[in-house]
Amino acid sequence: MDLAALPLVDHHVHGARRDDLTRAEFEDAITESDRPVPAWMTTFDSPLGFAIRRWCAPVLDLRPHADPGAYLTRRQELGAAEVNRRFLAASGVRHFLVETGFRAAELLDPAGMAEASGAVAGEVVRLESVAEELTDVAAADFSIRYAERLAERTGTAVGLKTVVAYRYGLDFDPARPSATEVTEAAGRWLGAGGGRLADPVLLRHVIWAGVDRGLPLQIHTGFGDPDLRLHRADPLLLTRFLELVERHGVPVLLLHCYPFHRHAAYLAQAYPHVFFDVGLTLNYVGAAASTVLAEALELAPFAKMLYSSDAFGPAELHYLGAELWRRALGTVLGERVASGDWSAADAQRVAEMIGYRNARRVYALD
Amino acid sequence: MDLAALPLVDHHVHGARRDDLTRAEFEDAITESDRPVPAWMTTFDSPLGFAIRRWCAPVLDLRPHADPGAYLTRRQELGAAEVNRRFLAASGVRHFLVETGFRAAELLDPAGMAEASGAVAGEVVRLESVAEELTDVAAADFSIRYAERLAERTGTAVGLKTVVAYRYGLDFDPARPSATEVTEAAGRWLGAGGGRLADPVLLRHVIWAGVDRGLPLQIHTGFGDPDLRLHRADPLLLTRFLELVERHGVPVLLLHCYPFHRHAAYLAQAYPHVFFDVGLTLNYVGAAASTVLAEALELAPFAKMLYSSDAFGPAELHYLGAELWRRALGTVLGERVASGDWSAADAQRVAEMIGYRNARRVYALD
Amino acid sequence: MDLAALPLVDHHVHGARRDDLTRAEFEDAITESDRPVPAWMTTFDSPLGFAIRRWCAPVLDLRPHADPGAYLTRRQELGAAEVNRRFLAASGVRHFLVETGFRAAELLDPAGMAEASGAVAGEVVRLESVAEELTDVAAADFSIRYAERLAERTGTAVGLKTVVAYRYGLDFDPARPSATEVTEAAGRWLGAGGGRLADPVLLRHVIWAGVDRGLPLQIHTGFGDPDLRLHRADPLLLTRFLELVERHGVPVLLLHCYPFHRHAAYLAQAYPHVFFDVGLTLNYVGAAASTVLAEALELAPFAKMLYSSDAFGPAELHYLGAELWRRALGTVLGERVASGDWSAADAQRVAEMIGYRNARRVYALD
Repeated sequence: MDLAALPLVDHHVHGARRDDLTRAEFEDAITESDRPVPAWMTTFDSPLGFAIRRWCAPVLDLRPHADPGAYLTRRQELGAAEVNRRFLAASGVRHFLVETGFRAAELLDPAGMAEASGAVAGEVVRLESVAEELTDVAAADFSIRYAERLAERTGTAVGLKTVVAYRYGLDFDPARPSATEVTEAAGRWLGAGGGRLADPVLLRHVIWAGVDRGLPLQIHTGFGDPDLRLHRADPLLLTRFLELVERHGVPVLLLHCYPFHRHAAYLAQAYPHVFFDVGLTLNYVGAAASTVLAEALELAPFAKMLYSSDAFGPAELHYLGAELWRRALGTVLGERVASGDWSAADAQRVAEMIGYRNARRVYALD
Repeated sequence: MDLAALPLVDHHVHGARRDDLTRAEFEDAITESDRPVPAWMTTFDSPLGFAIRRWCAPVLDLRPHADPGAYLTRRQELGAAEVNRRFLAASGVRHFLVETGFRAAELLDPAGMAEASGAVAGEVVRLESVAEELTDVAAADFSIRYAERLAERTGTAVGLKTVVAYRYGLDFDPARPSATEVTEAAGRWLGAGGGRLADPVLLRHVIWAGVDRGLPLQIHTGFGDPDLRLHRADPLLLTRFLELVERHGVPVLLLHCYPFHRHAAYLAQAYPHVFFDVGLTLNYVGAAASTVLAEALELAPFAKMLYSSDAFGPAELHYLGAELWRRALGTVLGERVASGDWSAADAQRVAEMIGYRNARRVYALD
Repeated sequence: MDLAALPLVDHHVHGARRDDLTRAEFEDAITESDRPVPAWMTTFDSPLGFAIRRWCAPVLDLRPHADPGAYLTRRQELGAAEVNRRFLAASGVRHFLVETGFRAAELLDPAGMAEASGAVAGEVVRLESVAEELTDVAAADFSIRYAERLAERTGTAVGLKTVVAYRYGLDFDPARPSATEVTEAAGRWLGAGGGRLADPVLLRHVIWAGVDRGLPLQIHTGFGDPDLRLHRADPLLLTRFLELVERHGVPVLLLHCYPFHRHAAYLAQAYPHVFFDVGLTLNYVGAAASTVLAEALELAPFAKMLYSSDAFGPAELHYLGAELWRRALGTVLGERVASGDWSAADAQRVAEMIGYRNARRVYALD
């Protein structure tokens, strides 16, 4: 089943890298490890590395399976601007929702993404980053100043994002902290000079302030770099929080979820306001993308799943996420049509829902 | 591999719904969510909804993939009695073990199931429900009165069931509570007017009273409606309880288990008295049934797995559970025969074991 | 894709059984259950039992799918020495790393394995067993005497192994215990007569003494016999320990890992010093081996996965582990080449890395 023409919404993505990359930088950008790559290996020898050589090489006019050296030489030759332009255009994404809260200086901002891709780009604001900008504030004013600052930063944003999985774990106390607790925690944090927000009370506060803001709330779950504890990133740990948020009418979007994507699909069936994707997973599993996507589709109502790449840095990832998603979903749905389980019309309709219709509805993009 | 003729035992099922269903009632009955279905979606847009349109429509003389409106119109036209008769007969189930402890008034009882299906129907008694009928009792008499009541209610029953996963979690203290603890807990519960049994001491007590009763014990594990916490419904949390029960000679049957079905298969290999199924999972995952069933078959000895539908309400679910199980197992075993891994005779024998022979032995149905 | 010619390193294996086996002994040896096999079942009716009848029977000159009785008669007829010789040779393993710490008297030692197979055999020393030999020691000397004893026992060893998953759980305190704590714990353990090492402080001590010894460290994770709690054998529980070990330059090898093999693959991507295999899993899942292996390959860099059989006892397991691994990996990689995702040359290279090159590098076997 060919899904090449679907006009995707990539509902969680970071900017493409502005500059050219050295080989070491490129290798670092295609692993979730934050450690130096050992001398006896290359990150090209991975499912993602092989997928880049297979699917990205032709976009740079190379043969499939080009070797890493040739690939990076050609990339250098074309230059970052042309590389970005090619990959972003080839992705077929019509709307990027760009999360801007991490290493923004290296990356294209939403306007830059729109310009390089010819697509529309909206912004998703990271709740923790907004707090980290608030250094010149009294502890007693933290709560009100955070709300003001968040309102300013999200004037035109389409969504919010929390990385509490990295900063604490999804097993945080789901209740909204009291005003007193917030003031005390802000005092400790500000007294220590601010910086990386990892205080559990302040993390809960900014999440609940995000709920009050009323925009769709993205939550990192599942794997990522080793700054998190994977067993504390299982979305099931959010169950009580999801129930507390339910009455507020805010959609919650569970990002990535692997290897807990079946857990996320259960939550998406159970709770009307919960949605999910498999995000960066498809890039990282490469040729195994259809297996993971099929598992994610086992339990979830079709109105509850979205597409994202979670691409960060090399524009290969923005393209490859879309390419692997189209191929994997085409494989899974194609098999269901071939076996007679699903009609072709239903399969097409489901692909459209997951590819862009659900995102357009949840984020009110029209 | 064609398993259409296997005379199944559905070892854990609820009654079919007696009455006709409105569209809203039908939609509510084909999701495990207990929330109202949002206006922007339909539960027909799910793996189960698609499977009903594909496999159930022809049983009602409609074409495969009939749209939901046409499907429900035809269902109404035939009436509940005829719909039930058709689906129950088409299931090819020869023996239903009917759990009667939940919303029994809406559903056919075992006699009604037998009459509508032409099959045999036995009863499985829910331990918590028996306690909830005991309102006129002194705390000090709770234990003895519960044992008496359970004996009465299970005079002809073939098994027992606990929903402790919903009422507390599978991480309950596995030890039998003391008589004093039970009397105190009964005092609290009765003093509060009885009702839904969720006191952890009383839950443990009724489970152990069930073990004393000596009938096979079914335990809900894995997903269900959001009244449970899925991460507290992992059957591995039962490990110590299973060890304590082992000496009592009571078979324990882990129901459903998804997405922890590999964990259940491990327990079934490790402990001679432990059995499992994937229950309602196949209905809910629809076209993905063969993937899940293949995973459940990875580790388990073939004498340790059973078939059930866990159907509740619409008789579509009683039929579809059997239909998807036959197709999925036929696919999985057929591939193993085709690859030369298994002989055809062995595959047929395994299908008979899982389909009915294991259940006949465990529940002494012959 | 045919991987029959790969010269495997089986980096974690036990010796083959020296003597002939009765039917009861053989049945006990092909299940991870430590309970007597119930009269109403046979462990031949399992994925492993079917795989033995399919793949091992021809090595003993029987037809595929020979029945268990004929199989065991033929085995008896040939005698243990000939059976061992045939299976070890047929495995195509060129280098066995033999863990000698469990029921060693029944099994071939490394020299015996080398002789029976014509391959090279090195030793992996179990850390807990070395402690259990230290009975005539004062508590205050335990630490120094353990280090001396370990140095003696590992003079020519290539690796170390811990079974803390069985003795406590992987949720052990990851920090190195203090000298005082070790002396106190040794006092308690020695005072109780020594024996099976299950004291959490001493377990931590021998693990850290193993790290100090500087050889690659194998850790049992995932399923095994019911002497462990599977939910406490998830390798993710080792995350903090892995981080603490990282600076010591010791490779850590997570063994088996099922059903948490995706978790292990994540750790192998995240941490440069972490490696993994699926070990005994392939034997136990039989015809489903390619599914499990494909999942293990989703996230892991190709330099981080190894082959092992974890065979213990019947030499069928030494052969079958290799046979199923070759077939499963051949299937998985063959599909990736057929779909165009991978080049044939890359697939061959990955098979060589996992089959022997990674092990040769990690254990410095050349």
